[in-house]
Amino acid sequence: MKNVTSSEIIICGHTYDEYIEMIKAFHGHVAPGMVIGGFMVDLAYHNLPQGEFFDAICETRACLPDAIQLLTPCTVGNGWLRIIDLGRFALSLYEKYTGDGVRVYVDSRKLDNWPEIKTFLFKLKPKKEQDSEALITEMNLACTSILGVQKVTINLNAIKSSRRDTFSVCPSCGEGYPKNDGETCLGCQGEAPYLHSEIPGLQED
Amino acid sequence: MKNVTSSEIIICGHTYDEYIEMIKAFHGHVAPGMVIGGFMVDLAYHNLPQGEFFDAICETRACLPDAIQLLTPCTVGNGWLRIIDLGRFALSLYEKYTGDGVRVYVDSRKLDNWPEIKTFLFKLKPKKEQDSEALITEMNLACTSILGVQKVTINLNAIKSSRRDTFSVCPSCGEGYPKNDGETCLGCQGEAPYLHSEIPGLQED
Repeated sequence: MKNVTSSEIIICGHTYDEYIEMIKAFHGHVAPGMVIGGFMVDLAYHNLPQGEFFDAICETRACLPDAIQLLTPCTVGNGWLRIIDLGRFALSLYEKYTGDGVRVYVDSRKLDNWPEIKTFLFKLKPKKEQDSEALITEMNLACTSILGVQKVTINLNAIKSSRRDTFSVCPSCGEGYPKNDGETCLGCQGEAPYLHSEIPGLQED
Repeated sequence: MKNVTSSEIIICGHTYDEYIEMIKAFHGHVAPGMVIGGFMVDLAYHNLPQGEFFDAICETRACLPDAIQLLTPCTVGNGWLRIIDLGRFALSLYEKYTGDGVRVYVDSRKLDNWPEIKTFLFKLKPKKEQDSEALITEMNLACTSILGVQKVTINLNAIKSSRRDTFSVCPSCGEGYPKNDGETCLGCQGEAPYLHSEIPGLQED
């Protein structure tokens, strides 16, 4: 393992300290998952196949999507980042027309020398009992050495959605919704997370 | 309807032009959904009930999550923004302990005077045939007048997840995964979007 101090670390063109400030501004706090996520995105960039337009897949909802959103052009809202929540701390960047890409994951076989990282990733202790300072120090020492890289080809048909092709007004709630979802919107089919809602009078024009 | 010029518009404390620059930097391009999304988040903020900690729900994956991520502390990765993809262009901000909150949606009954906005939201024409300049102009004139506001109470039990309580090593791929997902991870249960993957040799330490 190389002995890298944080001042020598470059993450997608940013110094380590710059990246930490970016995390604070966007994510709110310096979560360990954001630190390791920065190393993961950087490693993916260094292993990209040829191509011009790269989209992203993130296999977890925890932290890692924000590292991708901060360090690549891919966001949830612009559709270039797709979260497929397999519960694995892993991401892929892939050429959007061919599906050829690279996947970066945490290699659990390499964690034995890094007890704090292992404790964090496998939730071996409650968060409050974890030593977050020691954890971040371990992460900065470990850098990319705990990660694995794979070539992958994405099944583009499996992730393509034609759901939003046509929209209609839901006869139940009166809002626009994708017609393919059925005779009413999914919200009115019982998937809305609301116990109750009331319309207190629409706001003034 | 008030006649508001874009120079008078304030979106969550930002001038209109500042918000447009924020969109470009994060979302990549000035998507109409980001413009209307800015008005929606601002309207939600102005109608928040009492409380200290607000989380967000977004009912679509399209654009709106990025407006929330730019204008509130809630992101996908920090867990304060949850996307429940009902296909409706709507969002809720709610107090995280009580579930009391406010929902902002596009009121389709108010779109008749705004043909470009209606065409955009209901995809009445292919995107290439839409007049994006006229659309943004209409949005800036319409501001919040096409939106509706509802008080809501979120079903906190329905959106709570205990899936990530314990982690294990997947015997198939060797990666960490939430034990509750089964004997192997969801990826190895067939939910991974990869046609094939190969391990080209793990990178050097």
